[in-house]
Amino acid sequence: MDLILKNSSEHGEKEHENFQVFHLEWERVEIPYAVFSWMLITFFAKLGYNKIPFANKLPESSIMILIGLLLGIFFFLVNMTVITLTPDIFFLFLLPPIIMEAGYFMPNRLFFDQLGTILLMAVIGTIFNMFTIGFSLYGLSSSKLFGEELAKLEYLEVLLFGSLIAAVDPVAVLAVFEEIQVDEVLNIIVFGESLLNDGVAVVLYHMFEAFEEKGEAGINGADIGLGLVSFLVVAGGGTIIGIIWGYVCAWTTRHMKSVQLMEALVTISMAYLSYLTAEIFHMSGILAVTFCGITMKNYVQKNVSDSSNATIKSMMHILANISEMTIFLFLGVITVYNESYYFNFWFIIATVVCCLVWRVIGVLLLAKLTNLIRIKKISGIEQVIMMYGGLRGGVAFALVLSLKSPHKYLFVTTTLAMVYFTVFFQGITIKPLVRLLRVKTRSNTDPSMTERVTNRLMDLAKLGIGDILGEQSEIPLRTRRVYKNFDEHYLQRLLLRDRKPEPKFQETFDTIIQNDYLTKMGKKPSGHH
Amino acid sequence: MDLILKNSSEHGEKEHENFQVFHLEWERVEIPYAVFSWMLITFFAKLGYNKIPFANKLPESSIMILIGLLLGIFFFLVNMTVITLTPDIFFLFLLPPIIMEAGYFMPNRLFFDQLGTILLMAVIGTIFNMFTIGFSLYGLSSSKLFGEELAKLEYLEVLLFGSLIAAVDPVAVLAVFEEIQVDEVLNIIVFGESLLNDGVAVVLYHMFEAFEEKGEAGINGADIGLGLVSFLVVAGGGTIIGIIWGYVCAWTTRHMKSVQLMEALVTISMAYLSYLTAEIFHMSGILAVTFCGITMKNYVQKNVSDSSNATIKSMMHILANISEMTIFLFLGVITVYNESYYFNFWFIIATVVCCLVWRVIGVLLLAKLTNLIRIKKISGIEQVIMMYGGLRGGVAFALVLSLKSPHKYLFVTTTLAMVYFTVFFQGITIKPLVRLLRVKTRSNTDPSMTERVTNRLMDLAKLGIGDILGEQSEIPLRTRRVYKNFDEHYLQRLLLRDRKPEPKFQETFDTIIQNDYLTKMGKKPSGHH
Repeated sequence: MDLILKNSSEHGEKEHENFQVFHLEWERVEIPYAVFSWMLITFFAKLGYNKIPFANKLPESSIMILIGLLLGIFFFLVNMTVITLTPDIFFLFLLPPIIMEAGYFMPNRLFFDQLGTILLMAVIGTIFNMFTIGFSLYGLSSSKLFGEELAKLEYLEVLLFGSLIAAVDPVAVLAVFEEIQVDEVLNIIVFGESLLNDGVAVVLYHMFEAFEEKGEAGINGADIGLGLVSFLVVAGGGTIIGIIWGYVCAWTTRHMKSVQLMEALVTISMAYLSYLTAEIFHMSGILAVTFCGITMKNYVQKNVSDSSNATIKSMMHILANISEMTIFLFLGVITVYNESYYFNFWFIIATVVCCLVWRVIGVLLLAKLTNLIRIKKISGIEQVIMMYGGLRGGVAFALVLSLKSPHKYLFVTTTLAMVYFTVFFQGITIKPLVRLLRVKTRSNTDPSMTERVTNRLMDLAKLGIGDILGEQSEIPLRTRRVYKNFDEHYLQRLLLRDRKPEPKFQETFDTIIQNDYLTKMGKKPSGHH
Repeated sequence: MDLILKNSSEHGEKEHENFQVFHLEWERVEIPYAVFSWMLITFFAKLGYNKIPFANKLPESSIMILIGLLLGIFFFLVNMTVITLTPDIFFLFLLPPIIMEAGYFMPNRLFFDQLGTILLMAVIGTIFNMFTIGFSLYGLSSSKLFGEELAKLEYLEVLLFGSLIAAVDPVAVLAVFEEIQVDEVLNIIVFGESLLNDGVAVVLYHMFEAFEEKGEAGINGADIGLGLVSFLVVAGGGTIIGIIWGYVCAWTTRHMKSVQLMEALVTISMAYLSYLTAEIFHMSGILAVTFCGITMKNYVQKNVSDSSNATIKSMMHILANISEMTIFLFLGVITVYNESYYFNFWFIIATVVCCLVWRVIGVLLLAKLTNLIRIKKISGIEQVIMMYGGLRGGVAFALVLSLKSPHKYLFVTTTLAMVYFTVFFQGITIKPLVRLLRVKTRSNTDPSMTERVTNRLMDLAKLGIGDILGEQSEIPLRTRRVYKNFDEHYLQRLLLRDRKPEPKFQETFDTIIQNDYLTKMGKKPSGHH
C-alpha cells in the first residue's frame, strides 16, 4: 500500500494505478493562493518594519523594495516561479485601491480651491516635461553620448519613453508625502498634480505608442489633431464616468436602509467599477475613481449607518495600504525577476539629470505663472518641495513593461533605475530637506490671527444658526465667496498681526499661547524671531 | 475626422488608420468587471426582495433563483455571454466565505457537546444514504423503469451520482434554517452534519470518480482499502490544516499591535488560505476553514482591537451573505445557460423519492442509535425536522458539473431538479411545518426552571468572583464538567418543574411570567396547555 504523492496532471500512463490517497493540484488554486500569500507576505514585511527599531529611520517604501529584493533573490535561488508585477496586475488590482482611498478622503474644498494650480502643473507641466525630456534624450543620443548603438534611437521612441517618465507618480508621492507631513496646500498641489496628470500621461503614451506603430512617415496632421481631441476624451470621459458612478452610488446608498449590511461593499464596488468602466474605454481610470470618490463621499457619509461608515473607511485604508506596500515589494522582486536588462550607464544618468533639471525649470516657470493670479503665493521654499516631489514609481514601470518598442529593455532598465533613485535618494533625503528648509508642516502650521478670528466668528455664527434651526445642521457657510470678499490685508493690519512674532519650525503651540499672553501683558515675547 | 469606435483586437488591417480616439478593450477587465457586476446585481436583487412586500413570504433563496432565471432569459435573449457558475468559481470563491463565517461564528460549546450525534449523521448517515440511493437507482434502472436507454447504467456511475446527491448541503441548510429559527441544538445537529459530511462526500466522490475511470474490472481490494485510508486523510488532513492555520492566526494577531489596521484582513486571509491549502492537497477545504474558524475565534477576539473585531464580523457577514445569494442567483442563471440537458422524468422522480425515503429511514435509525446514549433525547418532532432538513444545493450541482461520466447531462439535469425541489418545495413548506409541529424555536425556547436557577446561580457567582478579582473577567466556569455532574432529573423533581405548564409555540414571554405569577398566587394559569 504505497501512498503516492504525485501531481494529478500526470494522469498519462495507463497501467494499474492504485487509488491515489494524496493528490496535489496547484494550478487550480494558484491565483487566489498567490494573491492572499502576497497579502500575508506584505503584512509580515510591514510588521517586521514596525518591529525592527532602526528600520523606522528609512521610509517604508524603500524598506519594502529592499525586502522585495531579498525575496526575489530567495525565489531565484530556490528556483520558484512566482506571480509578480505585470501591467495588468498593477493597473487593474494594485493601483485602484490607492487612488480610490485618495479620492474618497480628498479634502474637496482645498482641492477645488487649488484646482487651477493643480491643472496647470498636471497638464502644461507634464506636457512640458515630456517634450523637454524626450528631445533632450534624443539630442544626447544623436550626439552619440550613449554610444554608437543608441545613436539611432528614433525620436518617437524617445518621446514615448518621455511620456511615461515625465508624469509624477501618485503612489510614490503618497508614500513619501505621508511621512513628511507638509502643509495641506503644498501637499494637495503636488498630490493633485500626480493624480490629474494621469489623463495627460495616458493620452500621450497611447498617442506615441500608436504613432510609433505607424512609423514617422504614417503620421499626418489629422492624427495630431485627433491626438488633441483624444486628450479631451480620455480626461473628460474619465472624469464624467467617475462623476456618474459617484452619483449612482450616492443615490443607491440613499435607498438601502433595508440592506445596511452591504453598504460598505456596494460603495467600494461602485468606486472600483468606475475605474474599470473607464479602463474599458481606454479613458483615465485614475481620474474616474478620483472624481467618483470626490462626488460620492459627502452623500455616502450621510446616507450610510455609522458602522458602515467605519467599515468603508477602514476597508479603504487597509486596501490602499496593502496595495501600496505590495507595489514597492513587487518592484524589489521584479528587479531580480525581470526577464532582461539593457544597461546603459550614460542613458540612465542622462534620464535622471533630465528629469531633475526639467522638473526644476518647469516648476519655476509654472509657479511664476500661477503666482501672477494667486492671492496666497507659492513661496520659494514650497517651490523647492514641489521640484523635489517629482517622484517616479510603479505607474511608469508598469507602463514601460507593456512597451513594444525595439529598445524596450533599455527603457525598462532606465525606468527601474529612475524609480530606485526616486524612492531611495529623494525619499530618504526629503525629510531632512523639509527640516533644513523649515517648510511649514501640518502639525505646526500656526493659524494666522485672521484665520483664528474668522474661524471663531464662523463657528459662533454656525452655532447660532444651528440654535435657530433647532438641529445640528452642517451649513456650508464657509464657501469660497466669503473667503474671496474678505480683505485679508486690511484685517491683518487691523489686528496688528505684524507685531506678532512669526512662529518657526517645531515651536510648540504652548509657546505660541505663552507669547500671545506676554504680548498682551506688554512684555516682549521670548522664543525665536 | 471620424471618431472610430472599434475593438482594439481588430488591429489586423494595415492601411492608413487615423489615430483612434475611442478604444474598447473588454477582455482585459472582463474578470474583475464580472465579479463586481455580479456583486452589484446580487445586491440589487436583494434590495428588490426587501422592497417588494409580497416577496418576503417566500424564502430569499427561492426568490434569488427566480431572479436568476429571469436574468438568464434576458442574457439569452440579448445573446450575451456571461461568466456564471463553474465548479472552480463555486469551490474557490463562493463557498469559502460562507463556511468561513459559519466556522467563525460556530457556538463552540454546543458544537462539541453535539459532536457525537453530528459525526454519526455526517459519516454513517452520508455513507448510508449514498449506498442506499445509489443501489436503489441502480436497481430501478435495471428494471427498465427509466426506459431502455438508461437500463445499461453502470453501478459505479450511479454510486458516483449517489455520492454527490447524498450529502446535505451547508449553504441550503444555512439559508433555510436561518429563516425558521429552530432551537439551537436541533440547528447545530443539522448544520453540523452538513459541514462535516463534506469530508465523506469528497472522498466518496473522488473514490468513485477514480474507480469509474478504471472501470469495474480494474478495482482490487487494495483500492478499497486505500479508499478508507483516504477518508482519514481527507477529513483528518483538512481538520489539521484548519487547526494549524487557526493557531498561526491566533499567534499572529497577538503580535500585531503596531499594525492594527490590518488585523481584519490578516484574519480573513488566513482563514481563506486554510481552505485553499486543503484544496491543494485535495483535502476537505470545508473542514479546514470550519476548524480554522473554531480554533482562531476566541484568540482573535481577545487579541484584536474593538474596531478590528467589528470589521472582521461585518466583513464575514457581508462576504458570506453575498456569496450565498450569488450561488442561488447563479443556479437560476445556469438553468437557462446550461450547455445541455438530458431530461428523464422517472429518473428525476426516483431520485427525489429515494433521497426523501432514505433520509427518513436514515434519520430514524441513527436517532434511535444516538438516543441510546444521549441524556437529552432527540424527540420525534425534532427527527421530522432533521429529515426535512436534508436539503441539496450548490455543492452537489458544482460537483455534478465537473463530472466526466457518459451520462453527465442526465445527472446534471436530475441534480438541478433535486435542488429546485429542495429550495422551492422544502424551503417554502418548512416554515408552516415548523409552526404545525410546534417545534421549539430559538426565540421562544423557555428556559426550564433548572436552567433558570443554574443561570442565576452562575451569574451571581461570576459577579462575586469578578468583584473579588476586581476586573470584568469572563471566567469559563460553565465547563462541561459542571453540566455533567449535575443531576438534572433530581433537580427537576426537587424544583417541581413538572407542575409548571409546558410553554407552547409562540407563547410570549409575558404570558409565561404572568402564569408563573398566577401559579404562585395559587390560581390556575391561563393560556394553552
